[in-house]
Amino acid sequence: MNFPSSTSPKPLAIIAGVGTGLGASIARRFAAAYTTVLLARKLEHLLPIEKGITDRGGDAFSVACDVSQPESVKNAFGKIEEVFPGRACAVAVFNATGPFVMKSVLDVEVEEFDKGYGVSMKGTLLFSQRAIPLLLSSSTSPHPPTLIFTGASASLKGSALFSIFSAPKFGLRSLAQSIAREFNPKGIHVCHAVIDGPLDVPWAKEYLGGKTDEETIDPEEVAETYWALHCQGRRGWSFEVDVRAMGEKW
Amino acid sequence: MNFPSSTSPKPLAIIAGVGTGLGASIARRFAAAYTTVLLARKLEHLLPIEKGITDRGGDAFSVACDVSQPESVKNAFGKIEEVFPGRACAVAVFNATGPFVMKSVLDVEVEEFDKGYGVSMKGTLLFSQRAIPLLLSSSTSPHPPTLIFTGASASLKGSALFSIFSAPKFGLRSLAQSIAREFNPKGIHVCHAVIDGPLDVPWAKEYLGGKTDEETIDPEEVAETYWALHCQGRRGWSFEVDVRAMGEKW
Amino acid sequence: MNFPSSTSPKPLAIIAGVGTGLGASIARRFAAAYTTVLLARKLEHLLPIEKGITDRGGDAFSVACDVSQPESVKNAFGKIEEVFPGRACAVAVFNATGPFVMKSVLDVEVEEFDKGYGVSMKGTLLFSQRAIPLLLSSSTSPHPPTLIFTGASASLKGSALFSIFSAPKFGLRSLAQSIAREFNPKGIHVCHAVIDGPLDVPWAKEYLGGKTDEETIDPEEVAETYWALHCQGRRGWSFEVDVRAMGEKW
Amino acid sequence: MNFPSSTSPKPLAIIAGVGTGLGASIARRFAAAYTTVLLARKLEHLLPIEKGITDRGGDAFSVACDVSQPESVKNAFGKIEEVFPGRACAVAVFNATGPFVMKSVLDVEVEEFDKGYGVSMKGTLLFSQRAIPLLLSSSTSPHPPTLIFTGASASLKGSALFSIFSAPKFGLRSLAQSIAREFNPKGIHVCHAVIDGPLDVPWAKEYLGGKTDEETIDPEEVAETYWALHCQGRRGWSFEVDVRAMGEKW
Repeated sequence: MNFPSSTSPKPLAIIAGVGTGLGASIARRFAAAYTTVLLARKLEHLLPIEKGITDRGGDAFSVACDVSQPESVKNAFGKIEEVFPGRACAVAVFNATGPFVMKSVLDVEVEEFDKGYGVSMKGTLLFSQRAIPLLLSSSTSPHPPTLIFTGASASLKGSALFSIFSAPKFGLRSLAQSIAREFNPKGIHVCHAVIDGPLDVPWAKEYLGGKTDEETIDPEEVAETYWALHCQGRRGWSFEVDVRAMGEKW
Repeated sequence: MNFPSSTSPKPLAIIAGVGTGLGASIARRFAAAYTTVLLARKLEHLLPIEKGITDRGGDAFSVACDVSQPESVKNAFGKIEEVFPGRACAVAVFNATGPFVMKSVLDVEVEEFDKGYGVSMKGTLLFSQRAIPLLLSSSTSPHPPTLIFTGASASLKGSALFSIFSAPKFGLRSLAQSIAREFNPKGIHVCHAVIDGPLDVPWAKEYLGGKTDEETIDPEEVAETYWALHCQGRRGWSFEVDVRAMGEKW
Repeated sequence: MNFPSSTSPKPLAIIAGVGTGLGASIARRFAAAYTTVLLARKLEHLLPIEKGITDRGGDAFSVACDVSQPESVKNAFGKIEEVFPGRACAVAVFNATGPFVMKSVLDVEVEEFDKGYGVSMKGTLLFSQRAIPLLLSSSTSPHPPTLIFTGASASLKGSALFSIFSAPKFGLRSLAQSIAREFNPKGIHVCHAVIDGPLDVPWAKEYLGGKTDEETIDPEEVAETYWALHCQGRRGWSFEVDVRAMGEKW
Repeated sequence: MNFPSSTSPKPLAIIAGVGTGLGASIARRFAAAYTTVLLARKLEHLLPIEKGITDRGGDAFSVACDVSQPESVKNAFGKIEEVFPGRACAVAVFNATGPFVMKSVLDVEVEEFDKGYGVSMKGTLLFSQRAIPLLLSSSTSPHPPTLIFTGASASLKGSALFSIFSAPKFGLRSLAQSIAREFNPKGIHVCHAVIDGPLDVPWAKEYLGGKTDEETIDPEEVAETYWALHCQGRRGWSFEVDVRAMGEKW
């Protein structure tokens, strides 16, 4: 992963849902080739990741954005246009995720259910509506413009007690399919990654319990797969790909 | 389809989403054995169906209910408890559906997207949270208590231009799975029916265009399948079943 | 389940794979309305089931048939034509199954793998090629002619150590889809039932171990579902339906 | 795609089903890093591809092999062991495919159906039984040993008239899943690629009709994806990935 020293403006890679986990790995990976724009609700979560990228010679720019709020998304993309006027966009990744709470469907509160919808479905819609026009505009990247959505095994299976997390993930997958089928013929590569299993990220240490390395997913590996997806050409690209650790039961 | 003349109180069959189409057929079918409770946003849509059932000797009771509104759902089930205190509930069917609008994902408005979520996902949650406790209480029906959700081919495939309809239908299916996996072991039979193709209902005549009878689904047939699902025993019941017309391409 | 006393010739229901388990239940269920033809490799397995049906006033006729052998299938259907010349056929059920053996893919022997293919795939082809023309000919049954295939959860998921059983079950499902898509428009109702979990049949008692009734599938329930599938009309029939016990984990 | 000049023995990449189409692209791609072993029924189909690789500085070795014949597979792997004694194997790709013939299920001949089974299912089994032990032995490759199977959209959907091609492709997918679930925990990365649409290969020109470049898949792109799959690490690898052209309807 080396950083080119070119001074000509690099295309943008806009990553939504950059926390301390997978989003940061994705941002760092795409920073090897592009100017990365980092989106998350809290700017203070973004700044250390931005610094990590710029310290290594990459370009990064942080924007606070709540993907579930139309105004916030509008403002974030307005800010991007303001800071990088007319800059091409090569990649957009939607990696935001709603609450991960297990409980009986009888105990689910409307507020938390709404929140999952707000991030995973409304957020997907709002982000895509802003990102797609940027991706459609001409890019200087050798790779087709790419829009990647992060899903989970819960995108494919509604397990008991997982309705808050799973239902909107199903919805996100549906949206990703609709977007792919509409915009593939216009040259946008749309992907949906099914992350099957726990990510080995700092905040999950407790949740992971006694799992071995081989039972958890390395976010750097996922980021590498996102990069490989982006590198596919328009005469042979993938919509859906699963990613799991070798020790995962499936 | 004959109506028993028993005077002992019949268990309830609560049907949400009773309009002029499939919901009415379902209500009539279950009225052959149960006291049917009809839910829809507008009481005036329910009353002719209620009358059709009572004219043939069945029992029906209409309650206005917007399934996407917590207060409305709460009030509707409060009304049911008030009118039929302690009455067992044998069947609950969620047949409500959100807007069926085709448009580019770029043109989807948050309001219409929210509406699809409100009916198909939040409505599913709110209705199920009220219906499940009734279904868990002892019933005098010989069949396991049954909770049926109406899905569509859009529950399985996100087509281009269908995001408003499809994304929440995916979410509904996920919820139905989560509910099934949680409540099957407690004796509730949960079903998700994938209606694959256009229903031959009055309001769809124009939409159906020149389709022949054999290319459209007869709602009476679907209602019969819902009844057959209800009749399955707990040692061999179905979660998911597709239904289509013989002339459907799939 | 009562047996009509009509003396006019009843249409045939041809059931392949009638052993002591599910096939027998299916045969008995369809014997309530039709003259059942029982097929299995060994005539001595069929005769007690035939007797059970005729003792209760039904019509049954046994034919030895190895569904994996073209000549044997040809001879069996020749025999049927000879005994019931010109008789309409209302239902054909393919319930035969190959070896159920668990082992590492490294230890699978070609002979046992061939055997699974022979029954589940070649058998499906050979049986369908003979049954479909009979189903296409006019029937006196009020229900559309129906061709039902028995699948398993292994039809949808290739588990570790299950290749001998699972791979041909996937193949069977594919064939069932191809047949449905070709012959639905010609009026044949084609179904694929996914039996998800262990059947409570005599020979499986040991295999089932300490499972409770609620964790095993009652073959009588499955037979009832097959009957319900047969009763669906051509403006709303099902291709695929899963069947499981209330206590099944899925 | 550059060829390393290292003189130390490169690990093997064994590719079965190398004709003039996708297999040749895959072989060329893996020849950039490994000594490729090319398998196909006819040696004369392999030699030009072998020459193309060696002319560019790569290592290639051709072995005639009918994957549907146990003796032939045994002999081919015996030959490999003889020529490359103790050589590590980094990759095995099963790209062989059975007959692609469209016809009514009523007209399918047992011989052609057997042939599809022989290649796609028995061939998969026989090839895997020989390749897996090689993959399990220590390798000098930095990437986990990888076993890739080529599937098609017919692996997921049994279309009308496609039973000869589709049924065994379903079976192959099942086998791939069983192998993945058994050997993932032992460190083998198993993949199933769903090639969705026509490949732009010489022999398909007529079949492709008036399709544009953007409606056909470039086999070089697929080969690149196979390489990317191979490069995934064991803490984040993929089992299934679809590949299609931007203009494909799906």
